[in-house]
Amino acid sequence: MSNSEFALIDRYFRSLGAIRADVIVGVGDDGAVLRPPDGHDVVAVLDTIVAGRHFPRQTAAASIAHRALAVNLSDLAAMAAQPAWMLLSLTMERADTSWLDDFAAALDALALRFGVALVGGDTVRGPLAITVQASGFVPTGRQLTRSGARPGDLLYVSGTLGDAAAGLAIAESAAASLVTGDYLRRRFDFPEPRVELGLQLRDFASACIDVSDGLFADLSRMAASSGCGAELELMDLPLSGALLDAHGRESAQRLAMTGGDDYELCFAVPPQLSRAFERLAKPCQVTRIGQFVTGEGVVVRSAGAVIEFSHSGFDHFTS
Amino acid sequence: MSNSEFALIDRYFRSLGAIRADVIVGVGDDGAVLRPPDGHDVVAVLDTIVAGRHFPRQTAAASIAHRALAVNLSDLAAMAAQPAWMLLSLTMERADTSWLDDFAAALDALALRFGVALVGGDTVRGPLAITVQASGFVPTGRQLTRSGARPGDLLYVSGTLGDAAAGLAIAESAAASLVTGDYLRRRFDFPEPRVELGLQLRDFASACIDVSDGLFADLSRMAASSGCGAELELMDLPLSGALLDAHGRESAQRLAMTGGDDYELCFAVPPQLSRAFERLAKPCQVTRIGQFVTGEGVVVRSAGAVIEFSHSGFDHFTS
Repeated sequence: MSNSEFALIDRYFRSLGAIRADVIVGVGDDGAVLRPPDGHDVVAVLDTIVAGRHFPRQTAAASIAHRALAVNLSDLAAMAAQPAWMLLSLTMERADTSWLDDFAAALDALALRFGVALVGGDTVRGPLAITVQASGFVPTGRQLTRSGARPGDLLYVSGTLGDAAAGLAIAESAAASLVTGDYLRRRFDFPEPRVELGLQLRDFASACIDVSDGLFADLSRMAASSGCGAELELMDLPLSGALLDAHGRESAQRLAMTGGDDYELCFAVPPQLSRAFERLAKPCQVTRIGQFVTGEGVVVRSAGAVIEFSHSGFDHFTS
Repeated sequence: MSNSEFALIDRYFRSLGAIRADVIVGVGDDGAVLRPPDGHDVVAVLDTIVAGRHFPRQTAAASIAHRALAVNLSDLAAMAAQPAWMLLSLTMERADTSWLDDFAAALDALALRFGVALVGGDTVRGPLAITVQASGFVPTGRQLTRSGARPGDLLYVSGTLGDAAAGLAIAESAAASLVTGDYLRRRFDFPEPRVELGLQLRDFASACIDVSDGLFADLSRMAASSGCGAELELMDLPLSGALLDAHGRESAQRLAMTGGDDYELCFAVPPQLSRAFERLAKPCQVTRIGQFVTGEGVVVRSAGAVIEFSHSGFDHFTS
């Protein structure tokens, strides 16, 4: 890292590293030295977001920073990990002070909420892109994966689905003045990682995935990884009032099934644990939408009748 | 990660994760689950390389992959860490099979040499850029930092300096046909991370940094972090025969002082340990070039006479 890069990182991000005693060496050396707690494994995730691909080019710096970290925290949540550390790769065309102020403040705010320390990174010049690598902990053997669902397990999702896809469309059209538009856009711009729910799920869930590419695509992966099938009922999908107002039920259901960027959790709970789970699940709403079954693939019903559904959701390298 | 991305990662990189027993969950879930050894801290590093900025756009895929990992292994070496795991963010304009074959083979080759498992990552579409986040281990308290040098400590570097800067100039001019040109270009395209030396230095060095932005810039940082000064003798700089043949001594010395991308180690050894160290340092050549002193800054001598030297080396965000 060069002198001015160092100064830049130092100025904007160094304070973010001072919040954890398990950071032995933080930002400012060739690497960070980190001390995981005894009896725990480290869960490591990484996501890259690129301007014009994962967010519109005119997106505010605060949203970019929030999303860059939130998508990683969502992956940690899906693994039932307690977030701890992050490294940041920030590629940008120029060092713009006011942009960086906004970016750092938003990153700081989300990191502090979840007790995450920035421990290192790299700042380079190039087309705007942000990679965050985040790490967390799970007690040994207590992680959730996407491969543990069994036939008979109940299928749940957190929050509401489809809002972020509708919000992205509003952001792209730059036509957000309605109250519902503001709500939906905020769901795209500032997704809420379900970290607390993920930690609670250690005691209840058999499998978990975060919904980043649309429920249908991510549930299909979860079922395939688990070696079983899943079926769900469209009428049970949790939809926000804002989404229903803006799009009507049928379009809202389609967005919920295929829209990306929700960052809700989709998970399996064995039936004998479902009652205890539903009593405890408070930090965010959870909704039972179906179940896992023998076989393969995802069967979609509408008011009980099986319907054709094959849209595979958002995909970077096809078409 | 979408279906085709998943298939792409799966096809090219999954086998790289199968080489370590401490990878509990590897590529293919929302995150990796990793088990650091008892009594050790985790050392985490991250570097991004961008086409047209850190390597010429026409650079071969094998060199890009090698450099993306090697620069991180060099950071781990500077911290005296044993490499273990990596996550890869690969941003590229399109999924080109032959390019990916070459990229994966070179990444695989370097990773296997150092026992590094690929445990996760992200593949997205965008302008060519690669971020690697690598982690390694140090026994608790045994890391090296850039801040531990003390006045009186001897100053060493590994290998030879300036070759990579000369090699980059050749790569940019696309005029590499001389044997020396091939050697110098290879030093840029395929830097050798000094991992074994870094591990040996745990027993001898008081401080260490890797030379990525030029000796003068990196040594200046090391001295500043250590709260002391340094002085070095230009005539003692280790220069390759190829560099001397191609550029002559004066230009070679300038490249050694200010050229980037050498990825050699620059380190401090207390005088009472220097004899034992020099007897044992075998995996790559080391050369004593000066010493740390009270005061601040880096004093450069040529045949004993102090000379003006202020070039700060390669810097991304200043003109």
